[in-house]
Amino acid sequence: MGRDLHPLSLHFVMFIPTLQGQTTDEQLDEWLSLAIARGIIGTYAQTELGHGTNLKNLETTATYDPKTKEFIINSPTITSAKWWPGALGKSSNYAVVVAQLYTQGVCRGPHPFIVQLRDLETHKPLKGVRVGDIGPKFGFNSSDNGFLLFDNYRIPRNHMLMRHSKVEEDGTFIAPKHSKLNYGTMVFVRSIMIKDQATQLAAATCIAIRYSAIRRQGEISQGCGEVQILDYQTQQFRLLPQLARAFAFMFAAYEIRDLYMKVTEQLTQGNTELLPEIHALSSGLKSVVSWEAAQGIEQCRLACGGHGYSLASAFPEIYAYSVGGCTYEGENIVMLLQVARFLMKAAEEVRSGSAHLAAICGYIGKPESVRSRFTTWDSYSDADIVHDFEHVAKKQVFRAYNALKRHQRESTPEEGWNRASIELCKASRMHVRLYLVKTFLQKIATTSEPSLRAPLTDLATLYVFDLITASQGEFTKGGFMSDIQADAVREGIYRCLERLRPNAVSLVDSWDFDDAELHSVLGRRDGNVYPALLEWAQKSQLNRTEVLPTFEKYLGPMMKDGRSKL
Amino acid sequence: MGRDLHPLSLHFVMFIPTLQGQTTDEQLDEWLSLAIARGIIGTYAQTELGHGTNLKNLETTATYDPKTKEFIINSPTITSAKWWPGALGKSSNYAVVVAQLYTQGVCRGPHPFIVQLRDLETHKPLKGVRVGDIGPKFGFNSSDNGFLLFDNYRIPRNHMLMRHSKVEEDGTFIAPKHSKLNYGTMVFVRSIMIKDQATQLAAATCIAIRYSAIRRQGEISQGCGEVQILDYQTQQFRLLPQLARAFAFMFAAYEIRDLYMKVTEQLTQGNTELLPEIHALSSGLKSVVSWEAAQGIEQCRLACGGHGYSLASAFPEIYAYSVGGCTYEGENIVMLLQVARFLMKAAEEVRSGSAHLAAICGYIGKPESVRSRFTTWDSYSDADIVHDFEHVAKKQVFRAYNALKRHQRESTPEEGWNRASIELCKASRMHVRLYLVKTFLQKIATTSEPSLRAPLTDLATLYVFDLITASQGEFTKGGFMSDIQADAVREGIYRCLERLRPNAVSLVDSWDFDDAELHSVLGRRDGNVYPALLEWAQKSQLNRTEVLPTFEKYLGPMMKDGRSKL
Repeated sequence: MGRDLHPLSLHFVMFIPTLQGQTTDEQLDEWLSLAIARGIIGTYAQTELGHGTNLKNLETTATYDPKTKEFIINSPTITSAKWWPGALGKSSNYAVVVAQLYTQGVCRGPHPFIVQLRDLETHKPLKGVRVGDIGPKFGFNSSDNGFLLFDNYRIPRNHMLMRHSKVEEDGTFIAPKHSKLNYGTMVFVRSIMIKDQATQLAAATCIAIRYSAIRRQGEISQGCGEVQILDYQTQQFRLLPQLARAFAFMFAAYEIRDLYMKVTEQLTQGNTELLPEIHALSSGLKSVVSWEAAQGIEQCRLACGGHGYSLASAFPEIYAYSVGGCTYEGENIVMLLQVARFLMKAAEEVRSGSAHLAAICGYIGKPESVRSRFTTWDSYSDADIVHDFEHVAKKQVFRAYNALKRHQRESTPEEGWNRASIELCKASRMHVRLYLVKTFLQKIATTSEPSLRAPLTDLATLYVFDLITASQGEFTKGGFMSDIQADAVREGIYRCLERLRPNAVSLVDSWDFDDAELHSVLGRRDGNVYPALLEWAQKSQLNRTEVLPTFEKYLGPMMKDGRSKL
Repeated sequence: MGRDLHPLSLHFVMFIPTLQGQTTDEQLDEWLSLAIARGIIGTYAQTELGHGTNLKNLETTATYDPKTKEFIINSPTITSAKWWPGALGKSSNYAVVVAQLYTQGVCRGPHPFIVQLRDLETHKPLKGVRVGDIGPKFGFNSSDNGFLLFDNYRIPRNHMLMRHSKVEEDGTFIAPKHSKLNYGTMVFVRSIMIKDQATQLAAATCIAIRYSAIRRQGEISQGCGEVQILDYQTQQFRLLPQLARAFAFMFAAYEIRDLYMKVTEQLTQGNTELLPEIHALSSGLKSVVSWEAAQGIEQCRLACGGHGYSLASAFPEIYAYSVGGCTYEGENIVMLLQVARFLMKAAEEVRSGSAHLAAICGYIGKPESVRSRFTTWDSYSDADIVHDFEHVAKKQVFRAYNALKRHQRESTPEEGWNRASIELCKASRMHVRLYLVKTFLQKIATTSEPSLRAPLTDLATLYVFDLITASQGEFTKGGFMSDIQADAVREGIYRCLERLRPNAVSLVDSWDFDDAELHSVLGRRDGNVYPALLEWAQKSQLNRTEVLPTFEKYLGPMMKDGRSKL
């Protein structure tokens, strides 16, 4: 559960997987073993100063010159500078560079090229290459995220990664067979991210819940002494829903990993059937999980008061690391809108009567439901929960669909999409939450450890009630859930908190984080927080000398002057 | 609109106001001019390692010794270490120290003492004083927040600040006349904070909205070129509600400043009538504004994609500064529960028939309302808006009140309070939001610039609709607002966004921030963002040398070794 990068992070997470996914067999032979042996350090340079989301408009060019059988890589503008790739600034001597391919005078869109940036012996940038670090950031400051500009820099023809598209010696372009084959790496990276984000949230809940059992502040009953702050209902309400989320996200991460394996196997047999589904699912999960994990981490931090603000807590580092995931590998709102495209296709099919729906959005074709099946807080069955979430997700899918169609009639297909986009994002979120709820319940139902079922069920119930209460208006709309049911759900949250309170510390201990992994004075396994905080503070750089030079230079003379005037 | 502290920040914001508020006339003569002339640097040391919120249990002691007419200041435990005061670690040579007063063998509770910490000439800590920096934090890293421990350190009797309580030479304790007189400084500091938080949010919206008019990404209509990202509905929905909040908070800040002046004037005449009201209001506003400002700032940052993550944007600094306000000067949840005590008193009065309510919670005594007065999105009058928010706030106040009474019957008054505390916090939030809405509408209605009314009304409408939609379940409950009305409110948000879009940049320009104040490459007034980002990046410390020493030491040998093995 690292939270910072090193010079080879991108090499392993992006450079090598790209080589594996995008090279021809000959290219793989040439580059893979060299990369695996760390004979070179590579990164993946796609995002530019002016373009991240809209890849189609990347400005870096790779123009094929049939005379020399080379590509000329060029950065025509300031905004075409590659920007952000990890380890690009100072560490890497190679990069996969994504550039607009021009051959025979025609632009063929963005393609990947393997490009040497620095001399192998001196590590100096090669002629025609301008590369450096982009400066300090919110987090990830151990990484030399870089910028990169090319001045008509030439590379051999076979440095274009040609598994899918090809440029022949004479410049003839051969298009790929399936345009979505590149989705594989994206899906892989996003599914890794979901596990990573879930782990960060789990670490944050572990720190906050342990500390809340150590910290005593205020009395609940007079004369009984100060209580553990975890005994306050408000503290439980801040932390336990985050704990529930961490489990929900972790289970979804395992699920999508398994699905990825299945899809990869199908792809080797040329079967692309599940690709759109897993692409939409991984995009949606990436978006919802990264945002809710980041929010949850901040709640954990805030719940630890002033000490949560100290770097000794590890929270600031965890947050800055985690929240970056809302942006990289696909900006979250853009991701939600991709999911929405998938959902709108399903809605279209249902409306047109041809209900050939992917399993994951089968609910969109189910008959209308009228009443929530919620009964009492501790007898709400898995099937009933799923039924209710399906209803609400379906309602929002069609609300968005109707808005979309209306706006499209009133303007253009594209402008209509824009005018419906807030509703579309809501539909995607509901769809993803339904998936998270389903997966959580399924994992509990199929656990091989029956003793885990009770505490996990309490967590899942809290997760479900918290989601319902957060979208109460959606659940009560049209009388689907009555006010009495909604009130009972809210009361149910309080019952779940009471039930989970005694198990809270055991539940976070179950993640089995090592003290060295958590790296948090507040989250220490032995609970010895206060002496450790004092010890940590004493190591502050400012404490190396009793009196800082600023006293001699500024503060001392200022005060002497002030006193002499009186 | 500074976002970082300097060695004299606490001197001016806490030390001097405390001297002004808590000293006798003789003490004021002795200390105030010295402090104002900066002959000494002081801070305010109250919070301890083990106690922040529960001041009653502070552990530092000040024991009066009538033989020498001195107080003995002592830190009996590690947790009694003073912790967090700004400028305490290295800069200050004096502090107001809050300690448990013991005289004639009896503990008299926490009282303030002026204590010299460091030698005036050498700046070395005096004997019996252990002081230092507490280490790096999320933000405020220009401040030497400190720890402080005393080893039976003696100070003269007249170093106790004795405007309110007194200890006579023989050790006789004289209690203060009015226990709430100390509220003044707290109210003052919190009202300053509200303005400060509003300003930080305004700065963030200014940066994000300007950048969203510069950044072009993706096409809405094919062939029409890339659009300003502010043209995306989702981007407007991220940013414009934050802009509306910034105005709402700023207006409330002015309002509470005026109220503070009025209360201060009354207090000089011995009239404490308005104290509980302004105390509750400032606590509530501090809590809601600091949290929503911090959230809004993060939304602004996230809306700027990768560049928002760079320190060049200024967002990380603004966020880390602003979010600290959720914790210092009263932890937000604790603040909300203080407001709730005030509201529960009012509810109690209404239920018992003696409706002598403060103006600010007069709505709690109003007759029941049954239907929302919302008509259409552009004909929802101020009076109708206030009517609807009053209904929802009142409903929640009594929901919390009923829960409280029920739990108190079932357990004890204190435990009942704890079990109702989530509902109590909700009531406080609704109460504060009602105040924010009212103040926003009043300020617009009474503006002397009629030309400002239209754009400000659009903002206020967006603010109101956004609040309603966020609590939709509360508004539709019991059929108060119909599904059709709630849908129309949601549609109204989209209409407001459309109307505000053309004015968005002018509205943030109206704050008139200077480039040097914003200190943001993305928020530059001239919009010259990209060349400035490249220039900023080149100044990165890592770019001082083309090849870092890590290449010679680690990466070079590693790669050479890797290549030699192939």
